[in-house]
Amino acid sequence: MTKAAPDTVKDAPSDAFHVFDTTLRDGAQREGINLTVADKLTIARHLDDFGVGFIEGGWPGANPRDTEFFARARAEIAFRNAALVAFGATRRAGVDVADDPQVAALLDSGAPVVTLVAKSHDRHVELALRTTLEENLAMVRDTVAHLVAHGRRVFVDCEHFFDGYLANPSHALDVVRAAHGAGADVVVLCDTNGGMLPAQVQAVVRTVVADTGARIGMHAQDDSGCAVANTLAAVDAGATHVQCTANGYGERVGNANLFPVVAALELKYGRRVLPPGALTEMTRVSHAIAEVVNLAPATHQPYVGVSAFAHKAGLHASAIKVDPDLYQHIDPELVGNSMRMLVSDMAGRASVELKGKELGYDLTDRALVGRVVERVKERELRGFTYEAADASFELLLRETVHDGPQRFFHLESWRAITDQRADGTVDNEATVRLWAKGERVLATGEGNGPVNALDRALRAGLERTFPQLARIQLVDYKVRILEGRHGTQSTTRVLITSGDGTTEWSTVGVADNVIAASWQALDDAYTYGLLRAGLRPDPSPRG
Amino acid sequence: MTKAAPDTVKDAPSDAFHVFDTTLRDGAQREGINLTVADKLTIARHLDDFGVGFIEGGWPGANPRDTEFFARARAEIAFRNAALVAFGATRRAGVDVADDPQVAALLDSGAPVVTLVAKSHDRHVELALRTTLEENLAMVRDTVAHLVAHGRRVFVDCEHFFDGYLANPSHALDVVRAAHGAGADVVVLCDTNGGMLPAQVQAVVRTVVADTGARIGMHAQDDSGCAVANTLAAVDAGATHVQCTANGYGERVGNANLFPVVAALELKYGRRVLPPGALTEMTRVSHAIAEVVNLAPATHQPYVGVSAFAHKAGLHASAIKVDPDLYQHIDPELVGNSMRMLVSDMAGRASVELKGKELGYDLTDRALVGRVVERVKERELRGFTYEAADASFELLLRETVHDGPQRFFHLESWRAITDQRADGTVDNEATVRLWAKGERVLATGEGNGPVNALDRALRAGLERTFPQLARIQLVDYKVRILEGRHGTQSTTRVLITSGDGTTEWSTVGVADNVIAASWQALDDAYTYGLLRAGLRPDPSPRG
Repeated sequence: MTKAAPDTVKDAPSDAFHVFDTTLRDGAQREGINLTVADKLTIARHLDDFGVGFIEGGWPGANPRDTEFFARARAEIAFRNAALVAFGATRRAGVDVADDPQVAALLDSGAPVVTLVAKSHDRHVELALRTTLEENLAMVRDTVAHLVAHGRRVFVDCEHFFDGYLANPSHALDVVRAAHGAGADVVVLCDTNGGMLPAQVQAVVRTVVADTGARIGMHAQDDSGCAVANTLAAVDAGATHVQCTANGYGERVGNANLFPVVAALELKYGRRVLPPGALTEMTRVSHAIAEVVNLAPATHQPYVGVSAFAHKAGLHASAIKVDPDLYQHIDPELVGNSMRMLVSDMAGRASVELKGKELGYDLTDRALVGRVVERVKERELRGFTYEAADASFELLLRETVHDGPQRFFHLESWRAITDQRADGTVDNEATVRLWAKGERVLATGEGNGPVNALDRALRAGLERTFPQLARIQLVDYKVRILEGRHGTQSTTRVLITSGDGTTEWSTVGVADNVIAASWQALDDAYTYGLLRAGLRPDPSPRG
Repeated sequence: MTKAAPDTVKDAPSDAFHVFDTTLRDGAQREGINLTVADKLTIARHLDDFGVGFIEGGWPGANPRDTEFFARARAEIAFRNAALVAFGATRRAGVDVADDPQVAALLDSGAPVVTLVAKSHDRHVELALRTTLEENLAMVRDTVAHLVAHGRRVFVDCEHFFDGYLANPSHALDVVRAAHGAGADVVVLCDTNGGMLPAQVQAVVRTVVADTGARIGMHAQDDSGCAVANTLAAVDAGATHVQCTANGYGERVGNANLFPVVAALELKYGRRVLPPGALTEMTRVSHAIAEVVNLAPATHQPYVGVSAFAHKAGLHASAIKVDPDLYQHIDPELVGNSMRMLVSDMAGRASVELKGKELGYDLTDRALVGRVVERVKERELRGFTYEAADASFELLLRETVHDGPQRFFHLESWRAITDQRADGTVDNEATVRLWAKGERVLATGEGNGPVNALDRALRAGLERTFPQLARIQLVDYKVRILEGRHGTQSTTRVLITSGDGTTEWSTVGVADNVIAASWQALDDAYTYGLLRAGLRPDPSPRG
């Protein structure tokens, strides 16, 4: 019936505890995520490098993309840590398991491990499956036994287990026993609707472990905001297998977030669940996966968010000068993150001093620090933000320290034209007029958008005078409309990240419209790039 | 020493349990938040309407903005549910409490309740305060007694309580006893660094309640991803006062999120902690506060996120057709949210059918549903998303059902020019060429940005033919750069929300540049608006 031979079953770093990732299956259900096969392969590589023990790749047979993923993953990826897992359902009611094409597709995927979803809530059996509780148990037994007989390692996901247990504990426990008895290695209790709280989870898992003797896993959704805590509560109660997704991606609110779960287990429980050294890659892996799924990394995510170790409170900033550990729960380097001081008018002098020190400026002059704080406040009122624009802050700081502009060129005027012709094609053209080294330059550029055209015109105008600009690239570009509240007009803030191959820097522009704001951020970006290249500013670029 | 008389102390709905909000103090520490006094007053009104018992407004005296806030809040807001709370510190070491200007400012604020922050971790007393443990206890006793003698209700926030308790339980407990003995109504245990896990919190709170007899509160930070669970664990252990922030805003990762905490207490613990009917306002209040702090509402926030009850999985969509309660932990209407079906190529037929039904279309024709799914897939591949663009999806659906364009006008071409003159002023001008009711129209517009100019030119060109457009307004405008991965060029996606005073709708455009993408979304926005106004589409606008 099935021809594909299974790969060897590969164990997690230690099989005693399973870190099971379902980003590619459950995570992909998140609103706004839409993964190609290439995306899935890239994420699988990141997860394997990070060291999870199991990667659930999708539902082969139910979805052509998932079928293709399994074929290509087996051919293209040499997994170092993870075993590939196919997800599927128990056989259909009233059908012989050997005749169920969905079950055959699981074997055909060649994945060494299969997770089977089984109903464990009586109401779901009756309303969604429309069969009897007895047939439901037979479906679990038959399918597990069939896959085990074909050499697969089988985990059973008991869907809606907690709601089911609270409604009809005896059927819920029967499902666990049926799966365990038929040879499933792990029976996973799923809080599918995500409504549980840790105390409930702990009590139920404890009972199931005691009553069934099965090896228990936990799959938590975050609808109550407790998925990480629920996962840890299950571990406290005896679960030795946790199902998570990178960055907590998943349907509705999301799943238990892999990163705080493994960090808590390793750093707070002292339990090794990843290969040595993996944890310090966590921030990078989190951001890399966010890139692939094309969502901005969540700035306030525990452990790995860019804000996770960022301080702006004046009170805290003074204490941090004494000892950074006073205000952080772990050393951020343990998870590959780092402490940052934020420049904000709430922070006041202490954080400007710390930030200046971070950038290598001696800010012992109190009056100077006061002037910097004043300028920051004044510009923040207009919509600027320096928290995410280090290079613009450093330019502000330099101009205050040196009491004058730190520029290389003077921009006189510019124009951007975007044209959609009757045949639908769009043209973007920009012209700039600027001064550099006493010379007036007129330059023009075309691009795929007005800002891109302006950028090219600016480069065309500057590159003869400053060949160093050739190395500088725009890496990222973000637009934010600042809502006009209290009757004020809305303004636009642009953040640009630039790089020269060795480092990156961010600049900010704020104006009534996106092109003018981009222009300011570009001006800062190239000015900072030329400073980084070692050039000395020109006090009078107009000669 | 102080002249301001305190307002009467107002109790929470019932004083037996305190919902204490610190959005305006601790929440404002979040990276990216910068509140004006007007913002703080607006948020205080929302929180009071929602029904929290206490609103911590800031630190009067430490910050002129906070001082102004207390003066204006007392004068301008007639609080219905909340008591206003001033935050401050215990007196300085070695200073008589009556001579400490910071303590005087707390009384001057006129707030009926004061939260005092006290050190309870021996290391912090020694390193940050640079004083003895004995003096620390005296500072707590003196300051509490002084404020109580002046008629204030006093809560004491024990900073770093849990870390302190684990390091030196006897000093930590002494601080609780000192505060309680001097007359503090509640002693709040703070997990300031956010590193605790629920099991630890529960054990420590249980001990403190038993050993000190003080009324205990909980203040949790979210650095372990467990702030909501930690708050509930403290309640399980006997705490009757919870400190939270709207949407979990706060320093670093954030604070315990007010909304899932009160929802769990009301819906899962069956404990009334808000005025009757308040919970159904929760989604609106959450989004309104996000607007004021100028952050996009977190789409995946528990209970109140726009995705919190959104379903896209094909498996789930089929089950939801049977009974929506099978896949949601609570009825979303209890918290003022609603279920949504998402249109996505992962979902397939079942969710297109459900979405069509939601929009009032009869989609019993299987071939028709197949064509809709095909068109959605094809456009999603190019970067479109219909999950957040209901109106563009409905236009696509209508065009498929009616097998032809559902338009009122034909756009021939357009041009947008943005000009920054040498004096720094910026001009934006756009021209459009379009056809409506057989007539060719040439129109021009100016605006504060190129898209705004284009919008005005389009309105100018259409309004004579379609006076209904006068009622339609642009409500929101979002730009997203879709990163060019795997060597492809990056594209720009624009989402526009429009309204006619009674309802709102969203449309999407995708193109190489922001102006062309905006143009598509505007085209859909006005077309949909005219359909809503009851007009019949024109099969040949060019005559």
